[in-house]
Amino acid sequence: MYHVYAFATPNSVKVPIALEELGIDYTLHPVNVRKGEQKSDGFLALNANGKVPVLTTDDRDFTLTESAAILVYLAEKHGKLLSQDPVRRARTFEQLFVHASGLSPAFGQAGYFLKFAPEVMPHAIERFSAEATRQLKLLDAILAGQSFVAGDEYSIADIAHFGWIWRRAFPDLTLDDTPHVRRWYEAILERAPVRRAIEKVEHLANAIT
Amino acid sequence: MYHVYAFATPNSVKVPIALEELGIDYTLHPVNVRKGEQKSDGFLALNANGKVPVLTTDDRDFTLTESAAILVYLAEKHGKLLSQDPVRRARTFEQLFVHASGLSPAFGQAGYFLKFAPEVMPHAIERFSAEATRQLKLLDAILAGQSFVAGDEYSIADIAHFGWIWRRAFPDLTLDDTPHVRRWYEAILERAPVRRAIEKVEHLANAIT
Repeated sequence: MYHVYAFATPNSVKVPIALEELGIDYTLHPVNVRKGEQKSDGFLALNANGKVPVLTTDDRDFTLTESAAILVYLAEKHGKLLSQDPVRRARTFEQLFVHASGLSPAFGQAGYFLKFAPEVMPHAIERFSAEATRQLKLLDAILAGQSFVAGDEYSIADIAHFGWIWRRAFPDLTLDDTPHVRRWYEAILERAPVRRAIEKVEHLANAIT
Repeated sequence: MYHVYAFATPNSVKVPIALEELGIDYTLHPVNVRKGEQKSDGFLALNANGKVPVLTTDDRDFTLTESAAILVYLAEKHGKLLSQDPVRRARTFEQLFVHASGLSPAFGQAGYFLKFAPEVMPHAIERFSAEATRQLKLLDAILAGQSFVAGDEYSIADIAHFGWIWRRAFPDLTLDDTPHVRRWYEAILERAPVRRAIEKVEHLANAIT
């Protein structure tokens, strides 16, 4: 049985989505990031980097961090959501890394400087908000020509991008000017495994609050 | 024949290092990021995201962006630098994503706010510099117990981390307080393929300046 340490965060939701898509049993454990539990000694023993999500096993003989690394691991182990075709596979990794190094940090920093920073720094807000919007428009251009972010097949790259686009209110973004992202987002949101995963991570937060 | 569009940047150097390690022929093409050539129409046709490096073929029938996606593609195609063992492989992807989503953005933003921002923003400098130092110390703790970042085998995760640690002067970092990272860095720097790759990307910049 897998155990997933998570909360209702953009990166956390990706792991239960993948597990639901693959039909794998798991137990979710809440880590209340609003109270900083991800920096507690108990959690740091699980992930020294102090971040959710974490995937582990009953006896903790295997523990893995980094949402995208968990997606790759699960997809390879269960032979789904990551093509064996070299070109499709390359496009999937390309989008996983666009997400990890581009869209995700831009969304996260834009939200931070808009909402959490101790002072208003207009240049920092503009820097990260502009980059977040640029990333969204790049994704829109890709999705204008294909159903999913890495081609015509749903993959772990869609799950990765979905996490932050689901949480787009944090950096004050909408999908109003990116109709192809909107169409893609709504199609993913209609998937039963995705809805189950979202319900479960939202329940983690609601049960605590 | 592969063609690599690159410059003497932290992400660019990773691709020639991998190609040299794998013994694959390639031609390097300079993209002068100091002059903003990565935002030119010609380059945007190659990578709409406006970033180096880009890997392509003679007739451009296959073009790939994102340095880490290129590393994964080359490693899988040539069967080296990425273990087939599920746990070693998971550790390699974990560190590739730690690099892409954690260390790399922290080093890049710390350098930007220290050196390029139009005004001094002490909070932003502190935020990203502290995170860059934290990432370096996390890596040091990992390297205290093993030879390479993903275990006891040299992998593409080492090549990824090496890129930004090679360029640590940009965010004003040193390896003085991270002896294990220093030992690892110096061991990688001694590899003949790594030295050849560095020489070639530095030549790109020197030939232009």
